Amino acid sequence: MIKVGIVGGTGYTGVELLRILASHPQAEVTVITSRAEAGRQVSELFPNLRGHYDLAFSEPNKETLLACDVVFFATPHGVAQAMMAELIDGGARVIDLSADFRIRDIDTWEKWYGQKHGCPELVASAVYGLPEVNREKIKSAQLIACPGCYPTSIQLGYLPLLEKGLIDTSALIANSASGTTGAGKQANVAMLYSEVSDSFKAYGAAGHRHLPEIEQGLGDIVGGVKGDAEALSLTFVPHLIPAIRGIHSTLYAKLTGKVDDLQALYEQRYASEPFVDVLPKGDFPQTRTVKSTNMCRISVIEPQERGTVVIMSVIDNLTKGASGQGVQNMNIMFGLEEDMGMTSPAILP
Amino acid sequence: MIKVGIVGGTGYTGVELLRILASHPQAEVTVITSRAEAGRQVSELFPNLRGHYDLAFSEPNKETLLACDVVFFATPHGVAQAMMAELIDGGARVIDLSADFRIRDIDTWEKWYGQKHGCPELVASAVYGLPEVNREKIKSAQLIACPGCYPTSIQLGYLPLLEKGLIDTSALIANSASGTTGAGKQANVAMLYSEVSDSFKAYGAAGHRHLPEIEQGLGDIVGGVKGDAEALSLTFVPHLIPAIRGIHSTLYAKLTGKVDDLQALYEQRYASEPFVDVLPKGDFPQTRTVKSTNMCRISVIEPQERGTVVIMSVIDNLTKGASGQGVQNMNIMFGLEEDMGMTSPAILP
Amino acid sequence: MIKVGIVGGTGYTGVELLRILASHPQAEVTVITSRAEAGRQVSELFPNLRGHYDLAFSEPNKETLLACDVVFFATPHGVAQAMMAELIDGGARVIDLSADFRIRDIDTWEKWYGQKHGCPELVASAVYGLPEVNREKIKSAQLIACPGCYPTSIQLGYLPLLEKGLIDTSALIANSASGTTGAGKQANVAMLYSEVSDSFKAYGAAGHRHLPEIEQGLGDIVGGVKGDAEALSLTFVPHLIPAIRGIHSTLYAKLTGKVDDLQALYEQRYASEPFVDVLPKGDFPQTRTVKSTNMCRISVIEPQERGTVVIMSVIDNLTKGASGQGVQNMNIMFGLEEDMGMTSPAILP
Amino acid sequence: MIKVGIVGGTGYTGVELLRILASHPQAEVTVITSRAEAGRQVSELFPNLRGHYDLAFSEPNKETLLACDVVFFATPHGVAQAMMAELIDGGARVIDLSADFRIRDIDTWEKWYGQKHGCPELVASAVYGLPEVNREKIKSAQLIACPGCYPTSIQLGYLPLLEKGLIDTSALIANSASGTTGAGKQANVAMLYSEVSDSFKAYGAAGHRHLPEIEQGLGDIVGGVKGDAEALSLTFVPHLIPAIRGIHSTLYAKLTGKVDDLQALYEQRYASEPFVDVLPKGDFPQTRTVKSTNMCRISVIEPQERGTVVIMSVIDNLTKGASGQGVQNMNIMFGLEEDMGMTSPAILP
Repeated sequence: MIKVGIVGGTGYTGVELLRILASHPQAEVTVITSRAEAGRQVSELFPNLRGHYDLAFSEPNKETLLACDVVFFATPHGVAQAMMAELIDGGARVIDLSADFRIRDIDTWEKWYGQKHGCPELVASAVYGLPEVNREKIKSAQLIACPGCYPTSIQLGYLPLLEKGLIDTSALIANSASGTTGAGKQANVAMLYSEVSDSFKAYGAAGHRHLPEIEQGLGDIVGGVKGDAEALSLTFVPHLIPAIRGIHSTLYAKLTGKVDDLQALYEQRYASEPFVDVLPKGDFPQTRTVKSTNMCRISVIEPQERGTVVIMSVIDNLTKGASGQGVQNMNIMFGLEEDMGMTSPAILP
Repeated sequence: MIKVGIVGGTGYTGVELLRILASHPQAEVTVITSRAEAGRQVSELFPNLRGHYDLAFSEPNKETLLACDVVFFATPHGVAQAMMAELIDGGARVIDLSADFRIRDIDTWEKWYGQKHGCPELVASAVYGLPEVNREKIKSAQLIACPGCYPTSIQLGYLPLLEKGLIDTSALIANSASGTTGAGKQANVAMLYSEVSDSFKAYGAAGHRHLPEIEQGLGDIVGGVKGDAEALSLTFVPHLIPAIRGIHSTLYAKLTGKVDDLQALYEQRYASEPFVDVLPKGDFPQTRTVKSTNMCRISVIEPQERGTVVIMSVIDNLTKGASGQGVQNMNIMFGLEEDMGMTSPAILP
Repeated sequence: MIKVGIVGGTGYTGVELLRILASHPQAEVTVITSRAEAGRQVSELFPNLRGHYDLAFSEPNKETLLACDVVFFATPHGVAQAMMAELIDGGARVIDLSADFRIRDIDTWEKWYGQKHGCPELVASAVYGLPEVNREKIKSAQLIACPGCYPTSIQLGYLPLLEKGLIDTSALIANSASGTTGAGKQANVAMLYSEVSDSFKAYGAAGHRHLPEIEQGLGDIVGGVKGDAEALSLTFVPHLIPAIRGIHSTLYAKLTGKVDDLQALYEQRYASEPFVDVLPKGDFPQTRTVKSTNMCRISVIEPQERGTVVIMSVIDNLTKGASGQGVQNMNIMFGLEEDMGMTSPAILP
Repeated sequence: MIKVGIVGGTGYTGVELLRILASHPQAEVTVITSRAEAGRQVSELFPNLRGHYDLAFSEPNKETLLACDVVFFATPHGVAQAMMAELIDGGARVIDLSADFRIRDIDTWEKWYGQKHGCPELVASAVYGLPEVNREKIKSAQLIACPGCYPTSIQLGYLPLLEKGLIDTSALIANSASGTTGAGKQANVAMLYSEVSDSFKAYGAAGHRHLPEIEQGLGDIVGGVKGDAEALSLTFVPHLIPAIRGIHSTLYAKLTGKVDDLQALYEQRYASEPFVDVLPKGDFPQTRTVKSTNMCRISVIEPQERGTVVIMSVIDNLTKGASGQGVQNMNIMFGLEEDMGMTSPAILP
């Protein structure tokens, strides 16, 4: 039984992690820390967990965390940095769901997140936890920087085309949309039901924090193939869906030449991936079909055969976009079945 | 491994049954029948089931169904009646999720459902599948009439008070509200997103088909105690919530005397029930905390101590209100853990 | 042209008042005050008003408000009390949308609102602004206490029966449900889209601040008829609908005798009311059919003819439940057509 | 007073047209036809219109329609074609909200709509009713082909850039999303609340019927400037929003050179348009801010100054995307104020 510690965990990625681990046959949450909620039962904060946990939040404490086999950070950015060095030094294996260790270039991180990085010396050693790209490195990693939600859906969408060098990377367009849980569990007038429901809007189009992460990830894929990611440029426009969960990315790219069978390219690339499902030709994915699962469902099409390829990619932002991917990383790190604890179908309808 | 056959199964109770059984460690769906969809893979009709079933709908056939250990009917009313006699004669154990065998009085059934009953001779032998009331009878039953969704939430809400004879049964009021899946998967203008969203309404207040079922069930509870259900009368007004799943019943009754501790009464009555959760005093239940689970969460309160008791009771209409309760019955019938296959927490948020 | 001043107005009743008055042919908003937003254009805060107002929020100021023909308070409770004396002394006519002057008994107000009343000397002079009951008094009133949203829907629902003394007032039950705008425009985790959507719950059942207002109002109706409101007792349970606007009240009462024609009773009582619409027999109201209008739509039924009457009453909580009713009061006070500025149909779908 | 006839009108564009015209000071609906609903009051079908119309549906009849000053078609495609010749011959002025006369090339129309065109001889004389492009022609037109909803939002979004020749028209990308009323008021399982709510998906990406209309319209704008629309090619992917009304188009294009001030370009182009509102720099439009209005709100941005321009354009699909634009055309045709009857702000929240 893997002993799991969770730092933070009072937000939406926290409750999702607790939900998944409640059914995981080989893991047990033994510590969950929160300064604000210390002493409170998790089932008091999250009524869906009544009967599933007899566990209270506790003050963060190095010793209790180091007694765990793995520590998850389900915290806003900036928190993991402050505690990471002592945990890593103490030998902990850490899966960070926040943005703290995702971006290799410290200047870029500091520019987009508007603060000094608190632990730059560990950034280089962090493994970017996208199993479909980095599975081997994850196995032995001590520190996992779990990808963001938009970056996961976009990288998995472009991956097969980028690996084969089939698209013009100088003008990629990612039109994404997210459910409201992407904004977290903060009191915020703009995220009230009264403000979000029955409406739709773009936001962050001038520059969203996920942009440098996505460009780094796409560049790595291209660079791994061509040794040159110079020309890669992405226009990324996120939108807000009046829905609780789900990310839908609609990706556009110019094909550099005729591709005989886009469908086969995608099916073959993902044939052995447990959490990527290429839909039959002509079907398009719906976010509800992945709700509460770690699955990414993908479609690819070249409308009117005009040289522009369109990829649709959907995930649950809290699962494959955060906590589920974290558990997938944990399963890989500990030599378990990669889908352990995450084999249930989505709730539909 | 219990071999499960499903008749119907193209609607919402069907996909919910398939979803639950996909994770059930001791049951396997071997047959699913549908005239309209014969030959089609279930995962084609229900994209959330991709990767979980390699099973196609087939034409209904007595032999293949009799080869199963248990047969579920996930059909509109009227269908199970037509096939029931030959299945029961053939020795099948049957769990009928429809309304066909719920009401003992044939005239009453025929009046409310507007048609002749096709199998009146088996009605008396059917066990009403509410485990919290009929657990012992369910163990050996051959034919289970699984309760309706509103009736489940209302009976569990009133049960502790009725068993103790603490309320005036001559003027009960059940104000209930249901998500849209209660209306099934039929093409129906009134249930379009454009018609239901951002609105709320009552319906069926003049007389809903669940009324006689509820009054029979409440009367049975009273009668079991007092031998007299004569005076029982319920006013039942259902409403439509702009939500996919969930039933919320707000129940009112006059206390016949002072009750010292309503909270304790409820907690004690349900202490050993795996699927009834009495909330801490002062908490009220939300439908989302039971979404996709077989749980019924209940609160009880006497506002202002004025002699009127209010009970709130929530279930997922497709789970505890239909397919989950069906599986709970199956588990009891086959001597399994009663919550087998239904131990995951609700998805929240 | 009536010069209108608005105190507060940064919340939902404020924007609704501005929306209605933007189309009012005989009124013009000349002042709107807000300490927090002073200097900001109203169209910046409320993008739907772009092009409709060239008006900025200003610091509250007695002189500018006294220069108006009428002053609305669209503020949380407690604010109007603090400014009322000087406005009334200065001769202003005031329509208070908040709860400050609704309850005649000062102790009751202080108990339910948890603070000292700041202006008890003016409470007795305030006219309760429910036109269907108090139209004559409103005409000459200087200070209007505009009814709350739940109280409006419930009083209009019971009114015809109470006036005729046809129901047992010792055990009234009001099961109400409100859209999320009823909670106002405050940052509040419990009102996030992620928390409210796809769910339903009761709240405030132990005692909601609208209870004493409703009981006072119902008692006044009874008392006006019978000179005795002693025995009146209401059980009031509000619920939260995942919808932006709308209140739906389902009201229950025991008939004290046989009533020949409930439908006619309601139709006759409201025949000349511009903002109460009794639906044809058998139709039940939907909140969407009153969205953005000042209309209250009502149905009445005696299910199964068992002696319990059920009334459904719907309003838009921000319009007839607040700002629209305020404008209706203003129209009456200034001798205008009562529906002036509020003649547009609801948006449907 | 303009006498208005409506053919069809039982669907969502019909009720929207009736809603707008109910408040129009210079128009009166005198005839509304529907074979299916003949004899029924419009307020029976549309409860929001209770008290606003004393008008029943009648059988379609040439004489009664020719007695009107203007005839609207609020019908599915194919219907207007069948009646158009006799109405035009009879001298009627007609505003067709359907797709029948939008596309000049008959073969293209027949290919995309899958049927023979029933009135090809009148296609050339139809004026495409986009006032921002064709205002002068609309004034004297006898037959208006009112633009589709997606085409309106997309053409208004690209218009300023296309007129100045500032973007590469060979690879335009329109990523659009629509509320559910875009699918009309047909019984359709895929549009049930249970299927649409809490989800998001693309559809029609392989080829949507609005694509040829949009390309024709964009080509006309380019052609009017450059005399050459050859190279224009659009990738158009529509999506379904879980919202009742609203279209949001996110448009992408490569700038052919450096543009100094995109914001000024848009503001100047639309300065005198009553129904196009260019938002302040940095603001992005929300569909709810145009709900129930005829307004199109637009933002333009060049993210990271990388040469790709992004335009967001929102409309209400039933108003500016259909019936409101129809009334705008009517106002122009009859020399009225262009915004007559459509000056109310959007309902928000």
